[in-house]
Amino acid sequence: MTDTLRVGIAGLGTVGASVARNLLERELRLGQQAGRPIVLTAISARSRDKERGFETNGLTWFDDPVELAKSDQIDLFVELIGGEEGAAYDAVKSALAAGKHVVTANKALLAHHGVGLARLAEASSCALGFEAAVAGGIPIIKALKEGLSGNEVSRVWGILNGTCNYILTRMEEEGLDFATCLQSAQELGYAEADPTFDVDGFDTAHKLAILSSLAFGSEITIDTMYVEGIRQITLEDVKAAQEQGYRIKLLGVAVRTQTGIEQRVHPTLVPVTSPLGRTNGVLNAVAVDGDYIGGICMEGPGAGGDATASAVIADIVDIARGSKAFPLGIPANDLSPFVPSKMRGHQGAYFIRLSVLDQPGSMAGMAQHLADQGISLSSIVQHGPPPTRRADAVEDRVIVLVTHETSETSINAALAAINADERVAEKAQMIRIETEA
Amino acid sequence: MTDTLRVGIAGLGTVGASVARNLLERELRLGQQAGRPIVLTAISARSRDKERGFETNGLTWFDDPVELAKSDQIDLFVELIGGEEGAAYDAVKSALAAGKHVVTANKALLAHHGVGLARLAEASSCALGFEAAVAGGIPIIKALKEGLSGNEVSRVWGILNGTCNYILTRMEEEGLDFATCLQSAQELGYAEADPTFDVDGFDTAHKLAILSSLAFGSEITIDTMYVEGIRQITLEDVKAAQEQGYRIKLLGVAVRTQTGIEQRVHPTLVPVTSPLGRTNGVLNAVAVDGDYIGGICMEGPGAGGDATASAVIADIVDIARGSKAFPLGIPANDLSPFVPSKMRGHQGAYFIRLSVLDQPGSMAGMAQHLADQGISLSSIVQHGPPPTRRADAVEDRVIVLVTHETSETSINAALAAINADERVAEKAQMIRIETEA
Repeated sequence: MTDTLRVGIAGLGTVGASVARNLLERELRLGQQAGRPIVLTAISARSRDKERGFETNGLTWFDDPVELAKSDQIDLFVELIGGEEGAAYDAVKSALAAGKHVVTANKALLAHHGVGLARLAEASSCALGFEAAVAGGIPIIKALKEGLSGNEVSRVWGILNGTCNYILTRMEEEGLDFATCLQSAQELGYAEADPTFDVDGFDTAHKLAILSSLAFGSEITIDTMYVEGIRQITLEDVKAAQEQGYRIKLLGVAVRTQTGIEQRVHPTLVPVTSPLGRTNGVLNAVAVDGDYIGGICMEGPGAGGDATASAVIADIVDIARGSKAFPLGIPANDLSPFVPSKMRGHQGAYFIRLSVLDQPGSMAGMAQHLADQGISLSSIVQHGPPPTRRADAVEDRVIVLVTHETSETSINAALAAINADERVAEKAQMIRIETEA
Repeated sequence: MTDTLRVGIAGLGTVGASVARNLLERELRLGQQAGRPIVLTAISARSRDKERGFETNGLTWFDDPVELAKSDQIDLFVELIGGEEGAAYDAVKSALAAGKHVVTANKALLAHHGVGLARLAEASSCALGFEAAVAGGIPIIKALKEGLSGNEVSRVWGILNGTCNYILTRMEEEGLDFATCLQSAQELGYAEADPTFDVDGFDTAHKLAILSSLAFGSEITIDTMYVEGIRQITLEDVKAAQEQGYRIKLLGVAVRTQTGIEQRVHPTLVPVTSPLGRTNGVLNAVAVDGDYIGGICMEGPGAGGDATASAVIADIVDIARGSKAFPLGIPANDLSPFVPSKMRGHQGAYFIRLSVLDQPGSMAGMAQHLADQGISLSSIVQHGPPPTRRADAVEDRVIVLVTHETSETSINAALAAINADERVAEKAQMIRIETEA
């Protein structure tokens, strides 16, 4: 290896093209920061002829990303192909085996193969950077791996999917339903034609698995994670939450409990005044609770070509500089096995919205179902009927309950009783609440 | 140097004691993160006998911090003495000259001698870490030096002093005046008996000078900085700002302009919904605008023994790991000379609150003074007199103006005319406005 760090990029979508432009345009400054020249030497993508906004003359073209990964024309391989298997996985493994450093934005790859790849990187004395895999341009990986090293982290939690945050923000701000907001997200390019990966929580789950490993020094595990998306969130939920001082966000939350690590992705009520509650639109935000730091929160763009490229470049410069942080913060062999804390043992407060027949005793009956499980209430709201209602009309009434802290097991038992109660007009909505420590 | 990194701490106040406890209690985990053992070997402080909450047996005691700094019992010197000259400066210089790495939380030292010390560190191939010098536990130094390396930063701005933020938050939330809130901050230990350093903006200025150098790759300069504190902020200002959708914060702002770098510290109106506007109480928050990242904001504790210790530990682990980032991001000799952008050239929007005689033409006259300078208004509010007022009473009326973007020169000329106008009852209050890009 010469003193120059030679970089090859596989995958030239918006992120890859932006990384290439940055490397070409900022060569001098990046070299100053790294203490050695950083030079883009080779690229690979599906289509060779597409115009990508940077000069490809002088760069070696590879049709096969695996060939690029192994090429002796590069010292560092940037993987921006995507996908947890196939070309991305093959190329990254080949690069590490050939002694090349790797930088990737691939959350699925990391979530499924992160520990094995970290081991491979360590065995080859290579770096494996993945700042761009979580929360786009926000340097949260670096913060967890390096910036908070003195802390025992108790929780890492955040808004990790801009698509969902955009939809939920729009529902609240414009009083529109989920389907309408999803469509508008698709029109704006914030959501895919098949939105499953985003709105059903899988994207958040991948990112949370990575953060959780860095926070708790345990192996990356996604299998036992509780994952619930935002499709069932209604405008009524959003409004009722707002009335109680909360916003609904899709959160990924990883918490150390007495029995292990609880990893969960679900719609969540957070106080409107909290850092996560205030993060609106397509932005992401990640909060970390640690015993020395207390709490910090980082907010910024979670997606977008340039913002994600910013994270890729930061990894490249770190590696050029000779950064020696272990890919997962500590040696892969020192990671503890992941011990899941079961969702049924989750402790927290809950928001419940339900429709009951407007008849004497309905509300008392609902409260009794909760009391039967030892659940106490922090607030209960039932709005009066509209003043224009005819006196003999039989209508449903909406009740919104906020519980004190209880367990998932208790709330599920109470909900079963509530849903079986014939005074209940439709299945009760339950949304978990998360607050600052 | 053996494989073990041996650490000595000079200064055992709340931060120093917390760092020592962390190093002693977390030895195994820190060693895992660093890839080598990190061991506290020596300490120095004014009083040897004080109980500090950690076991001093086995640690070598030094009465003189300079002797500790040079000692062959350490590889890394942690300076937590404080002060820009004297023992702190002498000890840090001695440590670097003796080939020891240095970690410090000393903002004044960095603001005044940072470039020289960086040069000294580079000449000795030593690291110089100062994450703890700005915004306590928030890893903003690391974010600027490493996490955002692909960006041309256009602005770095933040709430860098928890004391001022506590006072301003309390004024707004409880409707109390500055003096009362300052006293309460003093009683709670958030403000010193002599609060000058905090409330007059000097603490923020030191921190801003450091951030500015990292953001723009220029030498650290504090001399030409515009600095204005919060003593003159009244409860009326706070309320009038709130009515317009703003909060008043003491900000440090460094912006790249066409003529150089503008560095300024002053009370500032920020939108209540912006990341900085939402940061209340003793918390700090720092925002960075970059061309690739767009904007990010990091919020967290800006002071406190444990939070500051968290930043010190992060630096120690980085150094143990062999981090090779230049102290100021790029080699000290590559820093560009600081070219100040003069305050009189500042462009921005302004908030003006003034009392005029309640007589026909008063408001028109004030608006004319602004129009004479080519300043256009974004909003103008004059509340009606209280309904109980006697018809013949002559009272002052308060007018609140918010301008569109104009220049500091124009606003000062307009204010001179306004203050010279005999209809104006007392000197007009002017507060600058800062918004997201």
